[in-house]
Amino acid sequence: MNGRIEPRSGTAFELNAGDELVVIDPMGGQVADLLAVTRGDVREMLSSGRTLDYAERIYLTTGDRLYSNRSNVMLEIVHDDVGRHDFLLTPCSEATFRLCYENEPPHRGCHGNLAAALAPYGIEDDAIPVAFNCFMNVPVDGQTGWFKVLPPLSKAGDTIRFRAAIDLIIGLTACSAPASNGGSFKPIDWRIVRAAEV
Amino acid sequence: MNGRIEPRSGTAFELNAGDELVVIDPMGGQVADLLAVTRGDVREMLSSGRTLDYAERIYLTTGDRLYSNRSNVMLEIVHDDVGRHDFLLTPCSEATFRLCYENEPPHRGCHGNLAAALAPYGIEDDAIPVAFNCFMNVPVDGQTGWFKVLPPLSKAGDTIRFRAAIDLIIGLTACSAPASNGGSFKPIDWRIVRAAEV
Repeated sequence: MNGRIEPRSGTAFELNAGDELVVIDPMGGQVADLLAVTRGDVREMLSSGRTLDYAERIYLTTGDRLYSNRSNVMLEIVHDDVGRHDFLLTPCSEATFRLCYENEPPHRGCHGNLAAALAPYGIEDDAIPVAFNCFMNVPVDGQTGWFKVLPPLSKAGDTIRFRAAIDLIIGLTACSAPASNGGSFKPIDWRIVRAAEV
Repeated sequence: MNGRIEPRSGTAFELNAGDELVVIDPMGGQVADLLAVTRGDVREMLSSGRTLDYAERIYLTTGDRLYSNRSNVMLEIVHDDVGRHDFLLTPCSEATFRLCYENEPPHRGCHGNLAAALAPYGIEDDAIPVAFNCFMNVPVDGQTGWFKVLPPLSKAGDTIRFRAAIDLIIGLTACSAPASNGGSFKPIDWRIVRAAEV
């Protein structure tokens, strides 16, 4: 099972425990915001604050586990071509455009795209937290705390691969914010490898 | 109006727009997790991801504004004796003790204390996000992404002061996690200066 997320849009689909999700940057330099929600109780979802606390690192890669707000493992990163992703910032939204891009026409952004894709599962707009922003390149100056949103380090065809620890609903976008993808808007591809095929 | 939060406990109270909240570390070296929720619609609450995105910095101080998940300003930091606080990590919880402190007896932590204090306002345990962790000292190595939880830089009597931009419910704790307060458990004091007195 696979698909393409057209530029500045999003989708949602289900993973079963043991399935693997491959997120592919087909052209290079694009960001995909990923949100995971527990199937069966959508109040349990991805938590940046829990995950970073347990990892003791802000940059995550192969071997790292992504935790829920209830401190359960949701996903494990099992392969990573790029090694630089963001887990500090919320998905871009209409407000992001209003506050950060005064010369850009407003767009509902990854937040709006995730909200629309996840609404059929009963997930509320207000509940959407910091997403795991695949390929997003946000280097932090540890001395001053300032960070920059730079173009991703991903090249065409680069992937990051996750294994689901539990049954999940996944929301995934092709990012809509100019800064996070170097001013270009490109698609994101994805592929599910079912547990029986792993 | 003022109060003392005993070691490893928490409280909740209301602020009106324009009120100022002074969080005081009476003995030095203690952390206070602060959560803000919009009065009248508790689905709107403090968002680390929105706030950091707009600040472009992970360390916040005087002049910085704390935003909600709807990108509204909730609080502004109007005075800060310390200059180092954390806004990356979720409040410590029973799971934190299980996963990070295997030799410590379990404790419901700041998460449990916030959940208990905020439950009368209809705020659900699962909804508690990354809090603004006053005085928590989490220096990040920007090259590697590793961070450490070190004792706070706050000295006895140091304060951080916030002005409420809208009517709020505030949850506030005296932190329960050994690492964040140098292995000691101390109280936290707070004082509200009403808008008419500012």
